[in-house]
Amino acid sequence: MPSFSQKTFALALITILFPLLLPAQNQSAQHPLDALKTQEYWTVYDVLRDSGKIDKDTVTHSVLLHEPAKDKVLTWKAGDPVFREADVILLRKGVTIEALVDITGRKLESWKERKDVQAPVVVSEFRELDEVMKKDPRVIEALKKRGITDLNPINCFADPFGYFALPEHEGHRIMMGGCSDTHGVYFGWSREIEGLQVKVDATEKKVLQVIDEGIIPVSQAPVNYQDLETVPRPGTTPIRITQPLGPSFQIKGSEVSWQNWRFRFRLDPRVGAIVNLAGIQDGDRFRSVLYEGSMSELYVPYMDPAVGWANRVFIDAGEFYATGHVLKPLRPEIDCPSNAVYFDSLAWEEHGFPVIHSQVACLFESYSGDPAWRHFEEHQLSGSGARVLVLRTAAVIGNYDYVLDWRFERDGNLRVAVGATGIIETKAVKAKNASEGGGHGMAGAPDEFGHFVAENTVGVNHDHFFSYRLDVDVDGVNNSFMAMRLVKRQLNNPLRKNIWVVEPSIAKTEKDAMMDIHLEKPAMWHFINSNVKGPLGYPTGYELMPGATAASLLDPDDGPQKVGAFSTHQLWVTPYKQDERFASGVYVTQSKGDDGLAGWTKANRPIENTDIVAWYTLGFHHVTRAEDWPVMPVMWHDFVLRPFDFFPQSPVITLPPAP
Amino acid sequence: MPSFSQKTFALALITILFPLLLPAQNQSAQHPLDALKTQEYWTVYDVLRDSGKIDKDTVTHSVLLHEPAKDKVLTWKAGDPVFREADVILLRKGVTIEALVDITGRKLESWKERKDVQAPVVVSEFRELDEVMKKDPRVIEALKKRGITDLNPINCFADPFGYFALPEHEGHRIMMGGCSDTHGVYFGWSREIEGLQVKVDATEKKVLQVIDEGIIPVSQAPVNYQDLETVPRPGTTPIRITQPLGPSFQIKGSEVSWQNWRFRFRLDPRVGAIVNLAGIQDGDRFRSVLYEGSMSELYVPYMDPAVGWANRVFIDAGEFYATGHVLKPLRPEIDCPSNAVYFDSLAWEEHGFPVIHSQVACLFESYSGDPAWRHFEEHQLSGSGARVLVLRTAAVIGNYDYVLDWRFERDGNLRVAVGATGIIETKAVKAKNASEGGGHGMAGAPDEFGHFVAENTVGVNHDHFFSYRLDVDVDGVNNSFMAMRLVKRQLNNPLRKNIWVVEPSIAKTEKDAMMDIHLEKPAMWHFINSNVKGPLGYPTGYELMPGATAASLLDPDDGPQKVGAFSTHQLWVTPYKQDERFASGVYVTQSKGDDGLAGWTKANRPIENTDIVAWYTLGFHHVTRAEDWPVMPVMWHDFVLRPFDFFPQSPVITLPPAP
Repeated sequence: MPSFSQKTFALALITILFPLLLPAQNQSAQHPLDALKTQEYWTVYDVLRDSGKIDKDTVTHSVLLHEPAKDKVLTWKAGDPVFREADVILLRKGVTIEALVDITGRKLESWKERKDVQAPVVVSEFRELDEVMKKDPRVIEALKKRGITDLNPINCFADPFGYFALPEHEGHRIMMGGCSDTHGVYFGWSREIEGLQVKVDATEKKVLQVIDEGIIPVSQAPVNYQDLETVPRPGTTPIRITQPLGPSFQIKGSEVSWQNWRFRFRLDPRVGAIVNLAGIQDGDRFRSVLYEGSMSELYVPYMDPAVGWANRVFIDAGEFYATGHVLKPLRPEIDCPSNAVYFDSLAWEEHGFPVIHSQVACLFESYSGDPAWRHFEEHQLSGSGARVLVLRTAAVIGNYDYVLDWRFERDGNLRVAVGATGIIETKAVKAKNASEGGGHGMAGAPDEFGHFVAENTVGVNHDHFFSYRLDVDVDGVNNSFMAMRLVKRQLNNPLRKNIWVVEPSIAKTEKDAMMDIHLEKPAMWHFINSNVKGPLGYPTGYELMPGATAASLLDPDDGPQKVGAFSTHQLWVTPYKQDERFASGVYVTQSKGDDGLAGWTKANRPIENTDIVAWYTLGFHHVTRAEDWPVMPVMWHDFVLRPFDFFPQSPVITLPPAP
Repeated sequence: MPSFSQKTFALALITILFPLLLPAQNQSAQHPLDALKTQEYWTVYDVLRDSGKIDKDTVTHSVLLHEPAKDKVLTWKAGDPVFREADVILLRKGVTIEALVDITGRKLESWKERKDVQAPVVVSEFRELDEVMKKDPRVIEALKKRGITDLNPINCFADPFGYFALPEHEGHRIMMGGCSDTHGVYFGWSREIEGLQVKVDATEKKVLQVIDEGIIPVSQAPVNYQDLETVPRPGTTPIRITQPLGPSFQIKGSEVSWQNWRFRFRLDPRVGAIVNLAGIQDGDRFRSVLYEGSMSELYVPYMDPAVGWANRVFIDAGEFYATGHVLKPLRPEIDCPSNAVYFDSLAWEEHGFPVIHSQVACLFESYSGDPAWRHFEEHQLSGSGARVLVLRTAAVIGNYDYVLDWRFERDGNLRVAVGATGIIETKAVKAKNASEGGGHGMAGAPDEFGHFVAENTVGVNHDHFFSYRLDVDVDGVNNSFMAMRLVKRQLNNPLRKNIWVVEPSIAKTEKDAMMDIHLEKPAMWHFINSNVKGPLGYPTGYELMPGATAASLLDPDDGPQKVGAFSTHQLWVTPYKQDERFASGVYVTQSKGDDGLAGWTKANRPIENTDIVAWYTLGFHHVTRAEDWPVMPVMWHDFVLRPFDFFPQSPVITLPPAP
């Protein structure tokens, strides 16, 4: 159960705060889908320690709730015992170990050495490799050549490979990196020492190769935005969202109820907020919509073939979550409005001890002044205001911040939004700006693979692809995916040559449901329950409506794209499998891409009238601009699950006018 | 100058209202782009009356500001005389007359009888045709067959044709309609008497043909949403946006300044809000972005070949604006939040007299709790809240309501959003619901061309396409359109087989700039000023970023599609021409489609480094659902103009944290 702190306003101008941090992590789990609790982390630690299999070289890379089989959760009732397990990933001398711990029974269920996979990177590896690199004579020499002898402000870093790139990766934990000069600034972003690349073996803790391609001065792009004077624009008066009587949602354990929505959520250190058992209270009936929804993976390939850049293909969640927690703190009044409540979450450190990450989610009601519906007819003007419940987190993976929203709307819509902000990844170049031979894509131009965002500083082209895993359960577990294709029909009619009609078809197997967006061949994506009919004779359903999105342009058989293969299609549908949770697989570091959506769906399994999972790819190509420097204004993308014949009529029509 | 009423809050719980309705319509025009004023309408009336060309059969169908040539506006300075003209459309005995009135000089500049076009429809035509139809013995007989003898609750209506459909249209004003039975309800929507179609000659005021295809009972779908009890969902507490010190925008005449944004707007009876001279105050410099932006046309083709339905192709603004004003009143606290101010607008009645339409626009600052930017780095968490200035109107064209927003954002983004709501157009069918032989697209099914939304009631498939006219003037009048295409490049690199690079190309002529969205061939759409370079050597520019949108599926050579041809491409770029304002032409009723974007661009005119106008098509296909009945929840679509190398760095980075 997430803890929460709550702020309530008694008056608009006099703010009374009730910071209310419940020690919820210390309670035992109340529901099979609750996040791991403090004592559960300690139990995992104790079981592993007592197993005799741990030694001083064994590092805990991951401790995640092993989510119970769905049938067990659905038959579980309050008061039943809560059976709990944890998936643990350990690394010992280069060998990844996969353990399953029965927390309830306090025993080790399985222990597997996996020489075929690589554990995700942890902070101590980064620290150790920094030291190793800075002690390497070739690195010291290369820095000296650049006039750098004071190594204190130098950070050397090594990035794991997000895909299996080279034969030497077989059985070896190889990383590629370099150093940044943080002198004069707060952090290393934009301060990389280009031209100097270092290949390391993370197991042996040694430098394999130092590549010095010549001196390129470190970028001096202004990046200390903290030091800039903040200037309110003239005449600006305060604005806020106020709820004088407090919020209208209720939180009980990890269950939220708001208006007719009900859902649970937990904050997972790998994929962030996981929404469970979301549905609609329809009179006496609870009607399920989504058994589980979460971001599943994030794929960010850069588009520069240079040494030290070609390898920059980040499978961000799977590669980096073990450095702490994918979610980072939210700042009240910036990230969430003053009527928000906040939630903490637990992760582990490298012994497996629990660590609190504070204020990494917020929940608030939002009202932006928009109507939920309206109609004008002669003298009469009717409608309702639109109020939304927002569950917000921010995933921060190095330079980038992603604001991740689950927005519950009063018309039954469930909107998922991703706001990209943070610091773009840049490369120092010798040319000052585009006047000195600039030209996108032009061979040899300093901005051939990007765009100048500051002097001597090019933001490198890249993509962002998110895979959202949506275990839809519309009015029950067994659903079907129905593509409603809009198809032109020629007419024999004096008034019209043609119209379009809707041709519905239910996907029988996974390949039928791989959907690509084409404006000339539009289709609506429906998840229906053919076992439950609404009053008009149609199956009840929810539609997934994409927003603006993108598809990967890379060849499917190239290494990075094999791991980020989910970006090939905008929609995939699979049968529910307990262990198919991550679109690019469990282990993405140096992955060959066999695990994950593309691999699973090769079997082309049946998906009709069974328990199905939808995977939506939200993506955008990113060519940077001056306005993205030093910090990018939030750019939002979204998609929506909306009821389609789920309600017998408009669900907002009986709401009072006030939002 | 729009008048405005303003509400300000001294306290959140004690609301003090300052309804402040300035008699601004009575002032004379202060700026060449101000909307027509009361006395200007009277001058137009006087000039026409005194011309001796008006008789009792002459009806005023349209009086619109004749917008001055752009060069005249741009050289105009405060204090200069304001030269004013009006475009007038009159109809006399079936002949459309086009007049240009010099308001300043109080004289008739031109008078043209146009036998080749049809004036837009006016309310008196609807009224007269209702009477004519209800007096026709064939109609009376057909109604009697259906048991209807009390004609008081019967509304008969005639829809003009939005395209040239039949040879008999040549020189004749033909409409197609029918009747609705409003007994028991407030209005005719969903109460059409299907199977009975009436063709009329609107000039001769006579019924040409009555087509009775047999009795289909009138739908009894519940539509009196006004009578439904409104039920606040349990536990709901109040929420509002508060600005205790009042709004932070300033309004001077028709000019608005807010933070660093400056713009003018007027409320035009045909296309709604027209934003002019929008730009950024950048220190001492005013930097232009958009000379003019407005919705230009709206195309709504239905997809049912039945008699009385095949003709339903609405070119909504051009066909129907003359029935009053395309904009309809907004309801405070539903359509706009409590911190909004409201604006009135003038239109004309059928003598040409001015008529006030109250409260048809609102302006407010919105804050939904989102960040404008944020970054987390170790201990440090920075960012700003996102505040937006919204100029909102609602165009109501019969059954549909479109909430039309211009949203000015603090990062320099100008977002245009369209929220579709209101009542969908339905058809009564004999089958009760889809269980009785339903099946989308299945030949002969009752829902072959739509979807049941209530018993015996099918929402008919249709499209909505909006053309937005955007006269971009980035840092000056002469701009170019640059497509930045993302193109795959094969590599000879051990780590990567391919990447994408950006290939910019400047459109030389109109055909180069007809852009279609393809996910597999992505392009960014830039409007650049190649005469003004930013500090990094790139031309300053704005990018048009589409949201989710649609393309028409209809054959380009079919009648409706010829008039709605703008829906063929998502973007068009033309050279600025004073008289090219409406994407489907000035006269759309029974149009052959020669006027408008498709026609103009046949010349394939040069558009490089000259004054250019962008036309964006925002569209969506609409298959209705039970949730759209009786009133559709708002469905939003948007696109954004965003700075791209316009600012030297992120424009939000120096803002204080509070929104």
